[in-house]
This record gives sequence, structure tokens and C-alpha cells, in this order.
Amino acid sequence: MATLGLVEYADAGPEVRAVYDDIMASRKTDWINNFWKALANDPLTLRRTWEGIKEVMAPGALDPLTKELIYLAVSASNGCGYCIASHGAAAKKQGMTRDMLGELMAIVGMANETNSLANGYRVPVDERFEKLF
Amino acid sequence: MATLGLVEYADAGPEVRAVYDDIMASRKTDWINNFWKALANDPLTLRRTWEGIKEVMAPGALDPLTKELIYLAVSASNGCGYCIASHGAAAKKQGMTRDMLGELMAIVGMANETNSLANGYRVPVDERFEKLF
Amino acid sequence: MATLGLVEYADAGPEVRAVYDDIMASRKTDWINNFWKALANDPLTLRRTWEGIKEVMAPGALDPLTKELIYLAVSASNGCGYCIASHGAAAKKQGMTRDMLGELMAIVGMANETNSLANGYRVPVDERFEKLF
Amino acid sequence: MATLGLVEYADAGPEVRAVYDDIMASRKTDWINNFWKALANDPLTLRRTWEGIKEVMAPGALDPLTKELIYLAVSASNGCGYCIASHGAAAKKQGMTRDMLGELMAIVGMANETNSLANGYRVPVDERFEKLF
Amino acid sequence: MATLGLVEYADAGPEVRAVYDDIMASRKTDWINNFWKALANDPLTLRRTWEGIKEVMAPGALDPLTKELIYLAVSASNGCGYCIASHGAAAKKQGMTRDMLGELMAIVGMANETNSLANGYRVPVDERFEKLF
Amino acid sequence: MATLGLVEYADAGPEVRAVYDDIMASRKTDWINNFWKALANDPLTLRRTWEGIKEVMAPGALDPLTKELIYLAVSASNGCGYCIASHGAAAKKQGMTRDMLGELMAIVGMANETNSLANGYRVPVDERFEKLF
Repeated sequence: MATLGLVEYADAGPEVRAVYDDIMASRKTDWINNFWKALANDPLTLRRTWEGIKEVMAPGALDPLTKELIYLAVSASNGCGYCIASHGAAAKKQGMTRDMLGELMAIVGMANETNSLANGYRVPVDERFEKLF
Repeated sequence: MATLGLVEYADAGPEVRAVYDDIMASRKTDWINNFWKALANDPLTLRRTWEGIKEVMAPGALDPLTKELIYLAVSASNGCGYCIASHGAAAKKQGMTRDMLGELMAIVGMANETNSLANGYRVPVDERFEKLF
Repeated sequence: MATLGLVEYADAGPEVRAVYDDIMASRKTDWINNFWKALANDPLTLRRTWEGIKEVMAPGALDPLTKELIYLAVSASNGCGYCIASHGAAAKKQGMTRDMLGELMAIVGMANETNSLANGYRVPVDERFEKLF
Repeated sequence: MATLGLVEYADAGPEVRAVYDDIMASRKTDWINNFWKALANDPLTLRRTWEGIKEVMAPGALDPLTKELIYLAVSASNGCGYCIASHGAAAKKQGMTRDMLGELMAIVGMANETNSLANGYRVPVDERFEKLF
Repeated sequence: MATLGLVEYADAGPEVRAVYDDIMASRKTDWINNFWKALANDPLTLRRTWEGIKEVMAPGALDPLTKELIYLAVSASNGCGYCIASHGAAAKKQGMTRDMLGELMAIVGMANETNSLANGYRVPVDERFEKLF
Repeated sequence: MATLGLVEYADAGPEVRAVYDDIMASRKTDWINNFWKALANDPLTLRRTWEGIKEVMAPGALDPLTKELIYLAVSASNGCGYCIASHGAAAKKQGMTRDMLGELMAIVGMANETNSLANGYRVPVDERFEKLF
């Protein structure tokens, strides 16, 4: 059960409704998922998080599907059940297939394995990897 | 300093050399990075990890650049300094630009923020997110 | 379901009952929450953990509310559902309001975002931050 | 070494300089710490992160010292060396003493211990902890 | 609910059935647990993971019980509910008693406490700990 | 550099010296490693942590070597550099060989891989794994 309950549109104040309206308009849907309804207990965090997501997930040097795959991969690695479910759905909407999901999960698993091996063996960074660009 | 030291080619046994040779041939380079030299203290893990990486990172439903971006994102999220450096270099080789890296990091940051918010508010998974495919 | 089940007062041996009695006396309640009932499968860990909590959470340079806020923040950041629920209740008992909780969660989210950015960009510690006191 | 290097004021474009100026004005200092110089490689993330920090860390239901303590606790728990150093300094500036820091660290340690115990024993949330407010 | 559903033997293709058959033969059971049924959505990952587990968990310098205890400890520390349950069962099958489990959990808790303290205090590695062998 | 510096024996007060003396007597050494010197900034945490370690690591249902292996595995998985180095040394003292370390690391890596896969696929716990004893 949500720590603070979920704020429905009918019970929301004007600041929260403004964000809900923008979410629905941006996503061309008439539905708000639970994450936003939970954040709405703190209207400032609701607004800031939504504005951040819009800015970060807009197409740029990376296309929207790649962005959702990255988001999903981090969420799977962190074991955030809600985020895996919601960003899984978002990635699918952007074109992620079952096969893509399988490959993504395989990479997440492998990365977690090698991350712990690199840390566990205390591997020093190679000179030529120090400066990237 | 590496927990067990780094195994150089000259000091390696035949199983380790076989993996080193395959790494250099696959990557068209004459250089082995420290991660493999640390794993070489356990030839079985060296071989299994390298075979796994080759299989997982081969082009499939996801292209090699997308795969490296996912690997890098998980490594940045986990704070594995070695892995950020080495997979940053690998992603750059596959075509990652500075702008792509900036966007990737922004997503990693945002995902870690919303993962902790979703967990902290104990947000229940929406009915329609339960089954993905 | 709990890995080892929960030990009720009626079924507990004398060492466990002694800790349960002390918990109820210290907290002025007649109720034991599940965490202690799970730890009671290992009476030594039950006792040591309870003694540690009592010592660490006693008023000192930090007041009890601030201490519970810190405990809750770490638990939210770690995504420990049980701990978020139980230390949320403890913090509320010490005076945490809904607004405080909202601000706490916002900080937890922001800290997780910037922690991953600082790690991901491999930011070196500034000279003047090296020594704190 | 920083993944992308650090952007000095002299080399920064107008958007980055505007954020640097605001950081220095808000903090009444003439100095920019490395975190912002690393983020400046991506001016959008620099601006969004700084605006977020300003909003989240402004006094509200929680005072500035409590906010910095929470930030520091999460950073210590996550093992982000840079963030521990920089938010340690920020907390000290807000009035954190050595004794407060000691108690904070003790809570962080205890929270990480009990978080892993609660998860490891798979402790079910008590009915009365389900709804917080 | 599983992200991609669970693949039952009756619905599985030949590659998946081959792995299922090997799991059942190796474990002398006629039952497949959900982890493999979930991975079976990606037959390549199913096979690679199973082969890896077989290789890593085979008796070697460490006996099978010690290996399962280590696996369980990492899973408890990571808070992976499924893995705690399944590797708890596997460890029990190898001879883990309730007392062993209690001691293991106590170590996991203590390790998480001191890990966060060592990171939080930014403790430098002692010279004599730098090289292990 | 350590957040609060390291407290040497010569500069320590009587409570800290009492713990240092007990550490050296218990370990039959004349040397204190940095972890305790860092904790000594908070004598209460120093004492409680040392008492906890002594109790938890004493021989019981698990022998001292197995206990150190578990401690090291959790530390490697968490990426705590200091703890990997110090508990690596402690495990070696208890009899850990290079081969044991290699197998331990392989398990840590595999556990992190499958933990993230189980979470990423949101695998439901099998009915028969629900209750362990």
C-alpha cells in the first residue's frame, strides 16, 4: 500500500491538476499512473519530477526508444519493481520487442556480474581509459 | 591495487593465453585491458565471462551501440569506476558522442531519483502494467 | 512470507521474552512488530540489534526526530519496504508531518540522482573537501 | 580523472556561466566545486540539477541543517565518495558538529544492517504500518 | 506477476526443453522453479545462465554448502526476495541448519553496517592490505 | 583521505585505548587497522561495532573461515574497497587460498547477475520456496 495514498484527479488541487493535465496531453492519454498519484502528495516534487522527465526523455542525440531502454535497464538493475513495470510499458510503446527486452535483461545481468567482479578484484583503471573525450 | 595482481601474457598459462588471443582477435587489437588480466587469476571465470560478453554483446535485436549504452548506464548507476571507464571507451568506439553520453547520464540520474521515489512512496504497480507482453 | 516464520511471545524462550519485555517497556506499548519476531529466530542477533538500536537512537547531539528522519531516508534510498513502513511510523511518532516526509523523499530522490551523476562522471574530490574537521 | 573533464569558468559558454554565477551568488562564494564543472559538459543537466538542488534544499518544513544531514546520510549509505566529501562540508557549514556526524554515521550503519536483515528474513509489513497518514 | 510470463515445459521449444531436462537430471527432480521459466523467454540467456550456475556451483576449492551460503548471503544483502527464497532452499538441501542461517544473516547485517561505515568515513586502505597474495 | 582523520593510540582517550587493547589481544597482534582508527572518532560506535564483530564472527554453527568468506562476499558485492581488502586479509588468515577466492568471486558475480535477472523479470516466488524451515 502506498505510504501516503494516491491522489485522484477529483481530489487534487489546482497545481496537481495542472501537472496531471500536462501528463495526459503530452502522452495523448486520459490516464494517470500511480507514480504521479503518489508524488502528488508533494506538489512541488510532482511538478519538478515531471518537468525533469519531459526534458530528459525528449528526443535529442538519443532517440526515445534508446532512452526508454536505458531507463528500464537502470530500473531492472536497481530492482525497482514499479519502475520495471512502468518503464517496460513505456519502452514497449516506443517499439521495444520481446527480443529486445531479452537482450536488455541479459546485458543488465552481465553488467551486474562484471561490475561486482571489477570491484571485487579491485581492478585499476587502465591508463588509456582515464580520459574519454 | 588489484586484489590478486594482474596476469600478463608472458606469465599466462595456455588456457589464459587462448582467451587473450581470442579477445585480441575479436577486437582487432594487440592489447588486453586490466579487467581480463585480473580475472586471469581464475582461468575458468576468465573464459566464462569472456564467452558470455561475446554472446551478449553480439548484434541481435539491439545494435552494438545501444548495447554498450545500456552496459555503461548500468555501470554508472552502480558506481563501478572501472566499468564506467572501460565501457565508456567501448561505447565511444561504437559511435557514442559526447552529447549521447550527456543524455545517457541524465537518464541514469533521473532513473535513480525516480527509483528511490517509487520505492520510498511504496507505489503499487498499476493493473495495466502487470503483464507486459 | 517470512523466511523462518515469526516468533510470538507465547512461543518464545526466556532470552527472547526478556528482549520483547524491554522493547515494550522502552516504547511504552504492549505490541511487538514483525521485525523483532523474525530476528527472534536467532536470539543473539535479536538482543544485539535491539541494544544497538537503543544506543544509536537515544537522544544525543541529534534529537530523536532527526535520527528517525535519517533512518527513514536511508531505508527509502535502499528500497527496504519493511523499513520504510516501520521507520515511517516511528518518525511520525516523533513528530514527522506529511510535509516533512515529502521534503525528505525529495532529498532522497535528489541525492540518489546526484550520487549516480558524481560516480558516472567520475568527479574527483575537490582539494578543500578532503579534510572535514 | 573525470570522464569528460571539468569545465572552467573561462572556457564556459553563456548558459554554463549563468548557472555558475547563480551558484556563486546563492552560496556567497567565488568558487565552483568540481561536481558542477563536470556536469557543465551537459549544460541542460547542469541547469536542471542546480535548480532542483536549490528548490529541494531551501528551508521548508525541514530546516537546512536537517536537510544536509539527510543528504549526507544517503550519500554515505550509497558509498559515493565525492558526495560524502561535498555534502559533509555543506552540512558542517550549516552547523553539523563532529558529534552529530558520528551519530549520523552510526545510524547509517545501523540502518544498512537492519535493512539487510529485514530483507534477508523477508519480514512482512505489519498491518498497522501499512498506511502512514 | 512476471514481466514476460513463465514458460511451461509443454509450451517450450526444443532448446528450452533441453535445458529444462538438464536441470531436472542434474538436480534429480521433476520440477522446474520459476526463475528458469522466466528466463526461458530468452533461450540464449536461459542456457548461458544455467551453464554458468552449473560450472560455478560445482564442488571445487569450496564445497557445495559453502558455495550456497555465499550465494544466499549476497542475495540477502541485495534484497532479492526471489533469490533469498530459492537459494535458501538450495542451501538447506546442502545441509544448512536454522542456526547456520541465523549466523549467516548476522554476518550479512554486520557486513552491510561496516561497509557503509568504511565508505562513510572514507577509510584509506592500510598499506599491508593492498596486496593479498 | 579519511573524513575525520584517524585516531592513533598515542592520541586516544581511555575508552578508545581499551577497545584497541582488546582488538590487539583478541587478534594476537600489535597493530590496529585504519577502520578502527576512523571509528575511534566516535568511541561509542567503535566499542559497539567491535563487540558486534567479536560476537558475530566467533565460531558457532559456522566455522571462522566460512564466516570470513561470507563477509568478504558481501563486501565484494557491495563494492566496498576497504572492506574487500581488510576482510580478504582476514579470510586468508583463516585459511582462504587463491583458488577459494577465485571461486568466491565467481559466485559473487553470478549472484549479482541472477539477482538482477530475477528482479528484472519480476519472478514470483515459487509456492514451495515460501517457507524455509
